[in-house]
Amino acid sequence: MIDPPYLLYLGNSTDHYAIKTARGLAVFRPELCIGEYRGNACTLTLELPRMTFAEAVAAGARTMVLGIVNAGGTLDPDVVDDCIAAMEAGLDLASGLHQRMNGEPRLVAAAVHTGRRMHDIRTPPADLVVGSGDPRPGNRLLTVGTDCSSGKMYTTLALHRAMQARGIPCDFRATGQTGIMVAAAGIPLDAVIADFISGAIEQLAPARHDEGWDLIEGQGSLFHPSFAGVSTGLLHGAQPAALVMCHDPSRRVMRGMTDRAPPDLGECIAANLATARLTSQGVRMAGIALNTSAMDHQDAVAMCLRLQDEHGLPCTDPHRMGVEPILDALLGTTQGGAQRAAQV
Amino acid sequence: MIDPPYLLYLGNSTDHYAIKTARGLAVFRPELCIGEYRGNACTLTLELPRMTFAEAVAAGARTMVLGIVNAGGTLDPDVVDDCIAAMEAGLDLASGLHQRMNGEPRLVAAAVHTGRRMHDIRTPPADLVVGSGDPRPGNRLLTVGTDCSSGKMYTTLALHRAMQARGIPCDFRATGQTGIMVAAAGIPLDAVIADFISGAIEQLAPARHDEGWDLIEGQGSLFHPSFAGVSTGLLHGAQPAALVMCHDPSRRVMRGMTDRAPPDLGECIAANLATARLTSQGVRMAGIALNTSAMDHQDAVAMCLRLQDEHGLPCTDPHRMGVEPILDALLGTTQGGAQRAAQV
Repeated sequence: MIDPPYLLYLGNSTDHYAIKTARGLAVFRPELCIGEYRGNACTLTLELPRMTFAEAVAAGARTMVLGIVNAGGTLDPDVVDDCIAAMEAGLDLASGLHQRMNGEPRLVAAAVHTGRRMHDIRTPPADLVVGSGDPRPGNRLLTVGTDCSSGKMYTTLALHRAMQARGIPCDFRATGQTGIMVAAAGIPLDAVIADFISGAIEQLAPARHDEGWDLIEGQGSLFHPSFAGVSTGLLHGAQPAALVMCHDPSRRVMRGMTDRAPPDLGECIAANLATARLTSQGVRMAGIALNTSAMDHQDAVAMCLRLQDEHGLPCTDPHRMGVEPILDALLGTTQGGAQRAAQV
Repeated sequence: MIDPPYLLYLGNSTDHYAIKTARGLAVFRPELCIGEYRGNACTLTLELPRMTFAEAVAAGARTMVLGIVNAGGTLDPDVVDDCIAAMEAGLDLASGLHQRMNGEPRLVAAAVHTGRRMHDIRTPPADLVVGSGDPRPGNRLLTVGTDCSSGKMYTTLALHRAMQARGIPCDFRATGQTGIMVAAAGIPLDAVIADFISGAIEQLAPARHDEGWDLIEGQGSLFHPSFAGVSTGLLHGAQPAALVMCHDPSRRVMRGMTDRAPPDLGECIAANLATARLTSQGVRMAGIALNTSAMDHQDAVAMCLRLQDEHGLPCTDPHRMGVEPILDALLGTTQGGAQRAAQV
């Protein structure tokens, strides 16, 4: 539905978390990304060729992807200006922001005028229902985190790749804008009506009767005051056999907060397991996925070993060290969680 | 905006929880309710005069309130038929169901044809933002529950009345369809986009600088697999100084579930306090509100005394015995919760 190849729009972003959608596409779908658009104030790059809108069209780009996020997900006026210029140059648009392009009168007018298409991917299905909590068969893994932007999507996609490489049937279940753009399917969970959060996950990861796995991308954190409701509904809807805890040990203040420290890792593991048990009594933690990008290699390895000892769980940086240790632990849990509960 | 007096529509309901919106209006706004409409299969009554649509119009009714709820909040075909007949008889409509009357083509056509108005009160404000979690001054109380439909709205309204009677400044903050109809204000929390749950409550119960109280109507339960996400966001957004735990001791299976038992009361109290502490470190439980309608008076009193001993908290049935014991305990917590946290 969204025509590749893509020009990735970074705008004037200066915070590398803010371009995680663009980075996700560049890392997991490099074959679809032919360039990046950076505003004059942008301090970041994905090391793709820097292009103007006209240059991107000349290079074959069909769609500009708004690869940026901000709290609230609004379309800032300068972003709207750029979108209009991109459409005038001949590009379609795709956006995962909360604020819909198709609800912004200037953009709608420009789309009509230029004949370009605007894809708002953060529009959930219309047929969602309230979650039932009924046990369903299948192996499901959910990534959780000590904070937002702590590596949940990256870890889930890395587990998906590694599991595919082992020949195990598995599906990546996307719940956020970046994951949905990467997978070309999914449900934008944070745009779902509050009553339907767990029901949306029951629909996204339905009963499964092979020995394979649904790998569900987590959102938010039980300890983030803005988003813990979403994380709670996700834990209950997923009925996970296994969780993987994602953590950025360099984080001093939680994402979007002024002075709130991230939770203690052990406390966060315990709270996620306790919440998940409501619908999946046998749930277990399969491992810890660290983002050690702020550390040198030796320190990163030392920290993984220390946390592994401390929590009795495999600990790795999926980007630096792969996810094999978690996968090894996980595949001992095949009969755990909701499936076991369903069989009792 | 919604013209009284009301005809309360009970439809063919046979489950007394399903008519809680109608009952809330009949109990807390009796002066606005002149009759009830019962279908032939309806086994319930609010002891208002039973009226046809034409009789209600002749008696002066201006609006028919769909006083029913069902899981999913859909407009069943027979309800749509009745709504059309009511508009043809001369009544406006008000509904708090998820499924909007203004999105149902047959109803829209009938409204145009008859010139009647249809009020969908489950439409949240358009200007909601993500919650900040920043401490804000003010005394806030939130009702929580072991299950859905466990008396949270009733208890909150009873506390509001009792506090007003003591001359304490206070506001009832409605979060559900019935509360909003009773208060003629509020935010339908379960219709809010998932990312904005806690932000909606920060907006609904803003900083308060007098010595008064915001009394916030709770929703769902941390232990209900369908709705715990909403309950979590509500706890975090409310930054409550105090909680009141609402519980129906006669409940054997949780609302809408096939075989799930309600949680242990002590475990539920502990989990709610633990979740609330994320944004309100000094939060305390002010009391337990029981719905003892299935018990005789002597048994009800005995159970209140037993739970009071067991949990070290005042315990009462607000409907039968009033809320004074909880209010007495509460007014010892004036400097607790978020306000104390904000002063540290």
